[in-house]
Order: sequence, then structure tokens, then C-alpha cells
Amino acid sequence: MSTTNTPKPAPSGPHRLRARRIGIDTQYEAVVFMHKECSVCRSEGFTAHNRVLLRAGERHVIATLYQVTTDLIAHDEAALSESAWLRLGLQDGGIISVSHPDPVESLGQVRSRIYGKQLSDAALRSIISDVVDGKYSDIHLSSFVTACATRPLDHREILALTKAMVEAGDKLSWKSSVVADKHSVGGLPGNRTTPIVVPIVAALGLTMPKTSSRAITSPAGTADTMETMAPVELDIADIHRVVEQEGGCIAWGGAVRLSPADDVIIRIERALDIDTEGQMIASVLSKKIAAGSTHLVLDVPVGPTAKVRSAESADALSAGLMAVAEAFGIRTRVTIGDGQQPIGRGIGPALEAYDVLAVLQGAKDAPQDLRARALALAGALIELAGAAPEGQGETLAAQTLDDGRAWAKFQRICEAQGGMRKPPRSTHRRPLVAERAGRVFEIDNRKIAKLAKLAGAPDDKAAGVELHARLGSSVSAGQPLCTVHAESPGELAYALHYASANPGIIRVEEQ
Amino acid sequence: MSTTNTPKPAPSGPHRLRARRIGIDTQYEAVVFMHKECSVCRSEGFTAHNRVLLRAGERHVIATLYQVTTDLIAHDEAALSESAWLRLGLQDGGIISVSHPDPVESLGQVRSRIYGKQLSDAALRSIISDVVDGKYSDIHLSSFVTACATRPLDHREILALTKAMVEAGDKLSWKSSVVADKHSVGGLPGNRTTPIVVPIVAALGLTMPKTSSRAITSPAGTADTMETMAPVELDIADIHRVVEQEGGCIAWGGAVRLSPADDVIIRIERALDIDTEGQMIASVLSKKIAAGSTHLVLDVPVGPTAKVRSAESADALSAGLMAVAEAFGIRTRVTIGDGQQPIGRGIGPALEAYDVLAVLQGAKDAPQDLRARALALAGALIELAGAAPEGQGETLAAQTLDDGRAWAKFQRICEAQGGMRKPPRSTHRRPLVAERAGRVFEIDNRKIAKLAKLAGAPDDKAAGVELHARLGSSVSAGQPLCTVHAESPGELAYALHYASANPGIIRVEEQ
Repeated sequence: MSTTNTPKPAPSGPHRLRARRIGIDTQYEAVVFMHKECSVCRSEGFTAHNRVLLRAGERHVIATLYQVTTDLIAHDEAALSESAWLRLGLQDGGIISVSHPDPVESLGQVRSRIYGKQLSDAALRSIISDVVDGKYSDIHLSSFVTACATRPLDHREILALTKAMVEAGDKLSWKSSVVADKHSVGGLPGNRTTPIVVPIVAALGLTMPKTSSRAITSPAGTADTMETMAPVELDIADIHRVVEQEGGCIAWGGAVRLSPADDVIIRIERALDIDTEGQMIASVLSKKIAAGSTHLVLDVPVGPTAKVRSAESADALSAGLMAVAEAFGIRTRVTIGDGQQPIGRGIGPALEAYDVLAVLQGAKDAPQDLRARALALAGALIELAGAAPEGQGETLAAQTLDDGRAWAKFQRICEAQGGMRKPPRSTHRRPLVAERAGRVFEIDNRKIAKLAKLAGAPDDKAAGVELHARLGSSVSAGQPLCTVHAESPGELAYALHYASANPGIIRVEEQ
Repeated sequence: MSTTNTPKPAPSGPHRLRARRIGIDTQYEAVVFMHKECSVCRSEGFTAHNRVLLRAGERHVIATLYQVTTDLIAHDEAALSESAWLRLGLQDGGIISVSHPDPVESLGQVRSRIYGKQLSDAALRSIISDVVDGKYSDIHLSSFVTACATRPLDHREILALTKAMVEAGDKLSWKSSVVADKHSVGGLPGNRTTPIVVPIVAALGLTMPKTSSRAITSPAGTADTMETMAPVELDIADIHRVVEQEGGCIAWGGAVRLSPADDVIIRIERALDIDTEGQMIASVLSKKIAAGSTHLVLDVPVGPTAKVRSAESADALSAGLMAVAEAFGIRTRVTIGDGQQPIGRGIGPALEAYDVLAVLQGAKDAPQDLRARALALAGALIELAGAAPEGQGETLAAQTLDDGRAWAKFQRICEAQGGMRKPPRSTHRRPLVAERAGRVFEIDNRKIAKLAKLAGAPDDKAAGVELHARLGSSVSAGQPLCTVHAESPGELAYALHYASANPGIIRVEEQ
């Protein structure tokens, strides 16, 4: 079968419009506003909410089209959201072309998986490549994530997804043959050991170029917390410079395009509040592989309301992580920890930063549980990397912390990353008090995390929850159990409303 | 645990802004534009892409927030998309309040299903209620649809989903104890029998208040085709009036809130290009139950590129549909038909309407396959409803069509629905021709449907594909096999590009 005239190479001829910056923040989503009656919409048959391909020079972005019927937008204009404007690298009055995007072939692979097939290496490569290229709408992204969660990825698929995620981004390489790294599985509020572990390990002469993520479903990720103390959006050159100079860094992984698909997938998982084993393994390890890590310690807290709830689940997850890590040549050790209650006092970026600073500075009131966990992880990593004999890593880590070398190293890392700064303090606070005297017998990690999120964390850096009670401590009636911190009265009220509707966040039983 | 002051009953105090209509068409999506520095954004801690609750009097809608940093929007204004404006029923200068929406509790049920649990009746009721209430974002909707497709719904879940979908909308009730209905499983382009079956059945004195859907993943649904001949967006009062007067109607189901969740779910399935058995059964039957149907004929075309590809699949689907239908007291008969190639000549709303009109008018060149299938279905329905003895329904149907009663009834139904009109003709056409002489041995239903969709169907009513060849017919080299119809040059080029890249749409073998 043939057409009577050969069609043009492009699906349709591009149409040129004057780009206009109108200062609309749509976050990640690229949006273009065009007049409904403009020649492009008419000739291309575009309707509102179509996805359209915008091109400016060598750059392109797929955007959601909204159509304007008033004189807000002229007929020869295309008004762009900030996200679209920046991705196209436009100047005022620049010219863009608008056309139909090609069909996204890899969506057929997503459909196949929904209908029961496994995904091949090539299929996952094409899916992840299209995800990174911005070709998937939220509907498509959510479907891919959900299909891989509802019928979990098998080992081969996890390997292939990890590989595809690494290949879709940049990679770091290091002169040192030992590149240390750590990762916490998360789910435990306040478990902010990285800013303590990195300076200890770096102070001992090891290389530890740590990239961390922002929060997925939690009130703070390490990058969120670290950002309250120093810039974390380092590019590859910055990371190399900081690590060459100081031996370590604590940077946001998303700014360096290490596994850039991960950040897209994480945004969807966050909206769905899900975080499955296969995607978690691929998420964690794709970052580590792309970062050039060779020795990795995994922190897996276990507790009834932590992400991992039983020793069996921890073993299964550890086995999955180790199997994939070893397949990529990364030496790995898993450290199972107590996940019954939050670590430290603060939950939320700035509140956790104050805990970190207290430990590094050796303050008398520093949270001892945070200190102990950081030393355990640093010790395991020092041993794995061969910098201390088996069984002596933790002692060496404690010495490095206690003699001030870790604190000095942390300050130098912050300066090298762009300058140390003081974490913000919240503007609106309210304590939650014990209704009766008694003993604290349960702290629900999930509910306390939700409380911190409703208060504004992690987007509002100073927001969150400050715990005053630990499991087993005795309290009197009316004594504050925790304080909710917020940056606006609306969010404070929102969090307090949740607290009053959920009395089981911190349970006190009469003695 | 208690807060020191009782929080206000609402999660946060509502904030009042002047509503401004700016004429932005975002289709179904409700969008609100507010200044980033306005008091509401600041005090509530809103960031771009947050979902916010808008209230005006008794009405409310959950909208996506975009933040403006220029003077496009004043600090005391909230500019609304047309969808949000219309749902709030606003007048110019009206006042709206903006606040955080309550957390969507039913999303926990969606997560449970992802993690392996079945959904209870109550869970499905709360999910569907929230879906209809607009509380689910596209990410949430896509996750629900995908979770129910990846691990298919079981019989109990399908029953519960069907029930929940019926309960979430309006219901029709009829004086007649026999209410006839039909449904085609779809997947077969051009299979547009409803506008022929309804007037035959109604002309025989039976009651047939037919509500149809728009296209899901196909180039035309019955409502899309019918709309080119008469208005289909009838409200409940309209439907009752038309049916009381003429015995039948052919209306769009979505306009009457019969199973309104169905239209939301269909939009997601369309974007994903999936259509699973459980959701299909719930979709079909929830509409029938809500429409008050008592006797139902199901048309299931079977062919290698139809939706149902084998006799076994047809039996399984029939069994599933019949089991659920019977559970709701609907007498059902399944008619398996030939699904090897499209029915009739036209594929696309208006092109199919011309086929329907040719059959109803008894035109010499009317497509005989469309006529035969419509008579088979009408005959089966007449027998099931007791209006003809077994084995004589089809003959009675043919008489009613041939003596002009059906055509007269169709015209009266169109007039009662708001006035008969002439389907539009396309403005841009191009034939696809045979590259060699030979015999047509394959027509790919899926590819020809995709070709029609790329040409603009169903949104562009006149767009689609007109077939000139049937399976087994002989063609000479250069003879047109079909003609692509479009309403814009861009879409015509887009479809032709696909055709040239996919030579197997209509296969000709040398004789």
C-alpha cells in the first residue's frame, strides 16, 4: 500500500510562533498556552490538553497545551510556563515551532506488562529513555510505576531496570579504587546519619562522593536536610572539585543527572505514597552505580511502623539489594537496625539538621541514638573498605568524631560546596501534650511522618515535628510530647487537625 | 495526646478571593491561577501543582494550582479555567474560597490492592465515590485503573465495582416491564449497528432507551457517530420525553450521569490504550443497570485483530458478562459475530453515519455486512424480549427495515432528540493505493483504527478512513484501497506518515 504523494519526513510541518514568558510556575510540568483560533491549533487539529512538541533550535520539550479563547494570548504567540521556558533555553521574543509529537512506541511495552508479559532489557531501556526524554504524561508514568508494583518486578527485570536507569544518565568516575557509599532504606523519621558518616569516613582519607535524594514519601530526605546547612545542587565538576579537595561531599543526586529517571519515578511514587522493593532496589543502586561506588553499606531499620517491618522482610530486601549490587561489582554489607521509633529529635529538614550539628559538635544534649547509629554505619563502611580491621571500625569512627576531626571535615565540605549556613527556624509552633500521666509505649513512625508532612515538610524546610519523649519515658499529664513546627498558620492548623483526629501518634499508657 | 488549643473544625480557614474568568480551556482538568505572593498561597503554604479545594456557595471542585509571578493575576484574584468556572457555577466577580482539600482516604484502598489485597464492596464504593467527586488526580486514576488491570479483578470485585458505579450516579426507571438494550464489545471498526437496531425495535412497539458511550480507544463510539445526525447530550427529562413519545432514543450516557465514574475511567483507559475484561464488564453493565434495562443482547465480534481474538476468549468474556448481568436480574443473550474486518465502509463518526443512513434508507449501495449484522442483533433482541417467536426475529426485523418503518422511526427519534442534521464532510482527503495487482487477504482492524485516529477521529467528526476494498476482493495496481479523511492538513500528513511506515494495514497478495 502506498500514498499517492510521499508524505513529508516529519509527521507534520512544524509551525512557528513567538515565545512569550508569562511567569507561570507549574513545577515540573511543561505547559504551553496558545490561542484556540491560532493557525497552528486550527491546521494541526489541536485540542486542549493535547501533548505537543515544542522546538527551539536544538532543544525540545513535550508540553501540555491549554487553549485560550480571550485576547490574553495573541494569535501568533505561544506563552510558556517557566519549566518549558527554561528547558528550551529561550530568550524573550524567541521563535519556537509546535507540532504533533511522534507516537511513544515504548508505551506498548508498558501495556504488555499490564497484560502479563515480563519486560526485556530492550523494553526497559526504551521505556526509561522515553521517561527521561519527558515523553510520558503523568497518566503513563503512574501506569508504569503501578504495573511494576502490582505484579512485582522479578530479579532479571530489576537488573535490567537498574542498568537502563544508569545508562539514561551521566556517570562519575574516580581515581581511587575504593569509593565508599552508604544508603538507608528509609521509612524511619529522623534517621539522618549521612552528614555524620561522610565527614568521619573522609577524615580517615577514604573517598566518599555521596549523592542523596530528596524525600520520596517522607518528611525529609538527606538532600533536603543537608540543603539547610550548605548548597547541595552541585554539578559534576563541582562534585569532582569538592571530593578532590575534601575526600567527600553530600550532594543532591538529581542535580547531576545520575539516574535522572529516578527523580521522575520518585515524584509519581510520592503522589501514590508507594515505594516497592524492585523499584527501590533499582532506584538506590542505579544512583550508586552511576556515582562510581565500589563499597556500599546499607542501613535497614526494622520496626512495626518502619518501612521494613520484620526480620524476614529485611532479609528478603537485603538479599535482593545485595544480589543486584554484586551483579554490578559493588561490595555490599547490610546493617539491620532498630526501627521502633524515630532517630534523634527532629523530623523535618532543618530540625534534623540541628540534631546532626549537635552530634558533630559533641554537644552534651546531642541525640545519642543518632550518634550510635552513625558510628555503627561508619564503622561498617570503614571495615568494608579495608581502613580498619574487622571489629575495630566503630571504635575508629568514634575517635574521629570525638576528637573533632569529623566536625572540622564537615565544615570544610560545606564551605567547598558553596558555604555553610544556619538551618532556618520555624515561625509557627504548637506543642502536643500528654492527656494523662504514664509511660510512652508507642510512637507511630508513619503517623508522625504524616504529621510532619502536613505541617509543611519537606517543602518548608523549617517545618516538621520535634519529639520530646522517647519510648519508655515517663510523662505527666499536660507535658509536651512533641512540638509541631510550621511556616504558615494554615499548615499548622492542618497538622493539628490531623493530630486531634489521630490520637495514636504517640501513645501513653497509665503506669 | 491533645493540642493545647482546639483546632478549628475545618483543616484550615478558607480564604476568599475574587474569581476571574480568563477563558482558558483545559478540558476536564480544573485549574486555578493565583499569584505566588498572594496571602492565600503564603499563609497556606501552597506551592505550584498542589491540589486545592475551591468553594463557591454549595459547590466545590478540586483544582490544580498554578502560581503566577507577574502582574497577570492580581493578589486578590483567582483566575479559573473554563472547567473550574462552569463546575462552580460562577458569575463574574463572584467570591470563592481556597483551602487544602481533606486527605483522600480511599487512596489507601488503591495502595492495598497494589500490595496484593482484594477490594471489598465498601472499598470500591469509597474509591468510586471519590473518583466521581473529582478527588483523584490523573496519577491516582491511572494507578487505580492499572492496578485493576495488572492483577485482574475477580468476579466478586467486578460485581462490587459494577454496583459501586451504578450507585455513584443517577438511575432511569420505566413503566414498561420489558426494557430492551444492546451492547457491542467493540474493537471492530465501523460496527455501528445501534442507530439501525433502535428504530427497528422501537418501531415494533418495544421500549429501547439506548445510552451509548463515546469512543474509548476506537476512532468512533456510537455517541460520536449519532451526534453527527442529531443531538445526543440529552438529560434525564429529555430521555424520558423522547422514549415516551417514540419508544426509543440514542443518547450519550455521559450527559445523564448514568455511571459517571465510567467516563472518568474511560478517559484514562483511552490515554493508556487499555481496556480490560473486568473494567469492561463493569463499564458496560453499570450503564445498563442504571438505565433500567431488563433484556440485553451482547454483540461480540471475533477475529485475529478484533478486541476478542478467539472463540475461547469470546466464551470467557460472554460468561463473565452474563454472570454479572444475571446477578443484577438482566436477561442476556450473546451473539458472536465475524470480526475479521471492519463492518461497512466508513471508520470515523461521520463516515459511519453515512453507512447507517444508507442502510436505513435502503440505498442500493448500502453496506450489506452492516445491514446483516444489525438485523441479526435486532432479531435476537426481539426474540429475547418476547416480541417474536424463536427463529423469527430476524425476518420481522428485516420487514420493519424494508418497509421503511425503521427509517421513519429513526427520523422521528432524531427530531425528538433536537433535530436531524447532516453529518459533516471532511476537508482534506488522500487515497492509499494498491502497490500491486492482487487479492486483498488481510485488513488489520487495529492498524486501520489507528490510522483513522491519527487522521483526527473521533474528535474531528468528519475524519477517519473510508474503505474501498473488502477481504477477498481483487484490485489492480494503483487502485485506491481506502481514502484517509481529515479536517486539517497536519493531521492528514500525520496519518499518511503512519500509513507509509506501516505497509501492512491492508495487505494485497499477488494472484
